[in-house]
Parts: sequence; structure tokens; C-alpha cells
Amino acid sequence: MEGKECLEKITICRIENIKRLKEKYARKNIRKLDANENPRCINLKRRTIKKAFKNLNYYPDTDCSMLSKELEKRLMLTEKNFLFGNGSSEIISLIIKAFINPKEKVITPFPTFMPYITESKIAQAEIEYISLTKDYKIDLNEILNKIDDKTKIIFVVNPHNPTGTIISENEFDSFLKKVSKNILVVLDEAYIEYLNENKKMNIKKLINKYKNLCVIRTFSKAYGLAGLRIGYLVANENIIDIIKKVKLPVNISCVAEYIATETLKNDKYLKTTINKNNKIKKYLYKNLKEFNIPFIESETNFVMVDFENIAEKIKNILIEHGIVVNGNFHEMENFLRITIGNKKDIKKLVKILKEV
Amino acid sequence: MEGKECLEKITICRIENIKRLKEKYARKNIRKLDANENPRCINLKRRTIKKAFKNLNYYPDTDCSMLSKELEKRLMLTEKNFLFGNGSSEIISLIIKAFINPKEKVITPFPTFMPYITESKIAQAEIEYISLTKDYKIDLNEILNKIDDKTKIIFVVNPHNPTGTIISENEFDSFLKKVSKNILVVLDEAYIEYLNENKKMNIKKLINKYKNLCVIRTFSKAYGLAGLRIGYLVANENIIDIIKKVKLPVNISCVAEYIATETLKNDKYLKTTINKNNKIKKYLYKNLKEFNIPFIESETNFVMVDFENIAEKIKNILIEHGIVVNGNFHEMENFLRITIGNKKDIKKLVKILKEV
Repeated sequence: MEGKECLEKITICRIENIKRLKEKYARKNIRKLDANENPRCINLKRRTIKKAFKNLNYYPDTDCSMLSKELEKRLMLTEKNFLFGNGSSEIISLIIKAFINPKEKVITPFPTFMPYITESKIAQAEIEYISLTKDYKIDLNEILNKIDDKTKIIFVVNPHNPTGTIISENEFDSFLKKVSKNILVVLDEAYIEYLNENKKMNIKKLINKYKNLCVIRTFSKAYGLAGLRIGYLVANENIIDIIKKVKLPVNISCVAEYIATETLKNDKYLKTTINKNNKIKKYLYKNLKEFNIPFIESETNFVMVDFENIAEKIKNILIEHGIVVNGNFHEMENFLRITIGNKKDIKKLVKILKEV
Repeated sequence: MEGKECLEKITICRIENIKRLKEKYARKNIRKLDANENPRCINLKRRTIKKAFKNLNYYPDTDCSMLSKELEKRLMLTEKNFLFGNGSSEIISLIIKAFINPKEKVITPFPTFMPYITESKIAQAEIEYISLTKDYKIDLNEILNKIDDKTKIIFVVNPHNPTGTIISENEFDSFLKKVSKNILVVLDEAYIEYLNENKKMNIKKLINKYKNLCVIRTFSKAYGLAGLRIGYLVANENIIDIIKKVKLPVNISCVAEYIATETLKNDKYLKTTINKNNKIKKYLYKNLKEFNIPFIESETNFVMVDFENIAEKIKNILIEHGIVVNGNFHEMENFLRITIGNKKDIKKLVKILKEV
């Protein structure tokens, strides 16, 4: 048996969890600073957990209407503007499944979140990779330059992963004005909750103005539910209805929907997460400056640090101390991406850097 | 914005959960006998639930190795033979994503489980529908007759849904012998746990003998975890590796993996489920015979009952009493598919039938 021809060039993508990292590095403890996970887990009440497990034997809600209602209130939109997926990855996969024919073009910044690229390759799309600007931002002008008749989807990430840089609503609005209405623009806001309010875009305004825009969000980052696999898409009804055609009828577990709803309602948890993240990030910045190590100022829960030609060496030294970070980003080989873990993790990291 | 052209013919597929059925029929209580769910939910210990929620803020295991290990023991296979999905639906979607190019042919019995058809249409496959035999079994000979150069996937369901009929290992083995090794045969065993041991096929033997065979199983039926969305694929390493290329790296929630593992270990729960199902099914059979209502003997947790030209009327009468069953199956419009709910549900159903 052979799979589709295009799969020959694709390698299996793996994400190592704590258990696997412990085995891989033969260590009892691992400080996981490689995947931008929230180091603080929400404290769920016994009653909440019990309720989440109600009706486990019945199929869940096809529209996640309980969770949808909470989001509708917050974004001042209707249930017709939402669609849910197993993490933002499934949403990316569904978008490509619904819109891409073989040989159509996808434009993506690079380096970036890998599922845009893997899913596009599987769909046999042509991919146009756009390098970042000199200050590590997404190059919206260069994206506009590369649009042609075959272009079907443009991915924009804000804040960008792996650099943590942002684009303003004005910049994005001017960009959208210049993009043909037949091209779908996907704005991935996986890290949006970490941004100051005044830097966030007005999603409602934008999706009402641009019928070819959709916005991805996730509960895997600031909401600390990466283990549950749940994210959502916000767009106008027309786009949602197209993607619903390719979505499996009951893709989201009833537990994921319930716990995401309860987490969303818990404003205090999100606030604490962001405050702690900002404090620890400042502490890391301060020390990096002291050590004269350059880094990219980040609006998220991770920081790209420039270790010049010893990045690989630093990565290995950190692993020897049980700290796992991420590296090997295209055209940014000197950088390591460090997740803002808890204070203890970052203190240990700072101590190791000081010694080196 | 417009989606792929092939989506124009596809309608959004919905599954109504209890809450939606209550709203739809404006009723306080609904007895849900339409989706072959297990009416008995597993009783989880507080400690189990607590453990399931550990590390919710971290990405789950890409290979579900904890659950895999339990299945390996039971099926005497290795982790290389397993792949997990959000219900068997996601697995069907992944199989088609990995193997089908536009215009290739998929052969499926009909009527059957809808995702084979919807996912094939989205992938722009040609679909060959094979009617059931006169005794409502999958017509393996007719499938062989319809194989041609374009055929890429054959779906076989055992026990079959919606009829509950089975094929024997001998029949299936003779069939597999005649199928080209370049055609993937997908055996969907969603209801296999309801079968007597002596009627179950030896999966290990079959997948070792036929490298083009893969088997789908689910925790949504006898294991009573439809709300959690988890199923698995069993096949030889080559097939698993191809499908892993198109699977998202972390598709299964840590909660689903943990609870499925605990449920799998709980042999008593499965045994009770099956015993109760068989007893209540017998009770239903006995009454149907008394009323002279014909039905198809089923090896599962549902029964196809032949109400001749009053099927639609019966369906509506049942709804008036809060009982929802399934109907409108292709070429079987006289039949209603009734899930073996709990004793109370079926007693109420029998009482209504008696009155009519």
C-alpha cells in the first residue's frame, strides 16, 4: 500500500510531552520551556469536574453552544460566527480542507507555526514563504507583492510565533484593503490574550468589514488547556458555513467544551496568568540585558534570545540541567525560543546562563 | 469567498444531542434511541477523574502510549500497529486524507455510516454504492465485481450499521484474498464488543496476513464514551506510518486518553453493558414477535424493525412520547433503527407499540 504521492516528502511531525522528554533525556525532572505552554494549570472545583463528565456516554454538542454563548457575549458576535476545533491545528486543517485545490497558492510568513505548512503540503498547495522584516515582524508588504492569480489563502500570525512581534490594527487594515476578496486571510491570534488591551485588534469590526477574513484562537496558551485540545474560529457566517461542511459532526469532547467554558468565565485565572507571565518576562529581560545577550521584545509568553554561534551549545547545556527550549528556526539559527515558565524555571535558566 | 467546488453538493451534517432534541421537540425528557449510544455511563472514581486532569496545561502524548499499551496487551500487537483519532470519524477522515486522490474510487455498502460517504465526496472521490444482500448483509461478491483500476479504498462494516448483520472470518478472508494489494480495505468494527467471542475475527492474524487491511474501533459504543471522542486504528506499521503523516501531532485530549484507558481496564463494566444489552434486546425481540412486527436479528446494541408503510407514522408517535429513533435509510424506508436503551426506555417503547 502506498499513500498519496505528495506524502513522500512529508515526515511525521511529533511533539514530545513531559513523559517522553524524561525518557529521551533520561532525567527525573524536566522543565518544559519549548512549546509555549502555560506553566500554571487552572484549579478546577470538584463540582465543575463532575459536571464536565455528565453524559459522557452520549455524543457531545455539534456546535459547542454552551462555550459559544460565552464567547458571543465577550466578542459581541452570534453563534453563526463561531466554529470549534481540536486546538487551532484542527481549524487550520479544516480551513485548508475547505478552500484549497491542488496547485493553489498559500502564502505564509516563515519561520512560523508548522501546521500551516504541513497541511498545505498535504493538500498539494504551492507555498510561498515570506521572510520576516529586519525587526522580525511579518512583512505585510512583501506578502502583497507575492499575491498572484493562484493565491487562495494568506496566513498572518499576531503576535507572531516564534518572534513575539505584533502588527497594529492600522497596518493590518491597510493590508486587508489591498487583498482581493477572493483570497482568504487567516489571522492566527493564538497568543492574543497576552497583549495589552490597546494593542488588540477589534475582531468584530474587522470580520464585519472584510468578508474574506477569519480569526483563529485557542485555549492552549493563556487559558492553559493545551491538554484538552480546543480552539475556535471567528468569521462571518458564510465562511463558517463553508468550513462546517468539512468538519466532522461531533469533533469536540463534552469535557473540553465544559472545562473551556468554565476557564473562560474565570477572569481571575487569566489575569493572574498574564500578570505572572509579564513579571517573569521582565525578570528574564533584566538578566539578559545584564549578560549582554540580545533578544526580541515579545508580546507573548515566550522570548526569542540571540545566542549567536553558541545557540546549539546553550541548548545542550540547558538540557543537561533538565531545561528544554526550542531552536533551529529557519534563518534564525542563532536564536533559542524560551517559554516564560514559572519563576523557578526561569531563575534556574538565568543561573545557568550566568555560569556560561 | 467560495469554498472548493465539490462542497456545493455537500450539506452540513448535524448530530442532535439530548439538549437540542429537548429544544427541538419542546419536551422536558427525551429517551435517545437514535444514535446507538450506550445508555449506561461508566462510574468513574474521584481519584481517576483527578488523575485524568493532571497536566491539563501541557500538550498531550502524540502517540497515546498509555492507552496503546493496554490495547497492545489485549490484541498482542505493538505500538507501531495503533493510531488514535477523535472518534472513528476522524480516523475515516485521516484514511481518506492519506490515500485518496481526486477521481479515485471508494466502494462502500449502502446504507451505512455516513462519514465514509461525506469524507469521500470532500476528497472528490468517485463513490460506488453497493446494496445489501436480500438478508441485509454486506454483499462482498458484489464489491469484488465492482473493483476496477481506479478503486483505492473499500469500506466493510462488521457488524454492519444500520442492519446489525455480520460476516464471518472465513467469508472475509476469501474476500481479502481476491482484493488487489494496492487497494486499502477498511474494516470498521465499531460494534465488535457486542459480538460473542466465537464470532469475532482474529484481527492480529488478518492484519499480519493482509498488508492492505486496517481495522477501526471506537470507545463511543460498548465502552460508553461517545462524549469523549476517541477511537483507534489497527493496521500494519506501513499503513500506520502513512496515516501518521496526515494526523495532527496532538489530536487526542489527555482526558480522553486517560479515561479510555481506565474504561478499557474495567472488564466488569464492559461485561455488564453487554449482558444488559442482550437481555433488553431479547425482551424487545420477544415483544416484537408477539406483535408480529418483523425485524433483523442484530449482533449489536440496535435493531432494525420493519414497520412497513407506517414507519414514519410510528416514528412520529414515538416522538410524541419523547422517544427518538432513527429512520429514512436508503432502500430501507420501512425500517426504523432502535437503539437498545435501558430497560425503562424499551419498556416504554414496547408499551407504545402495543397501543398502536
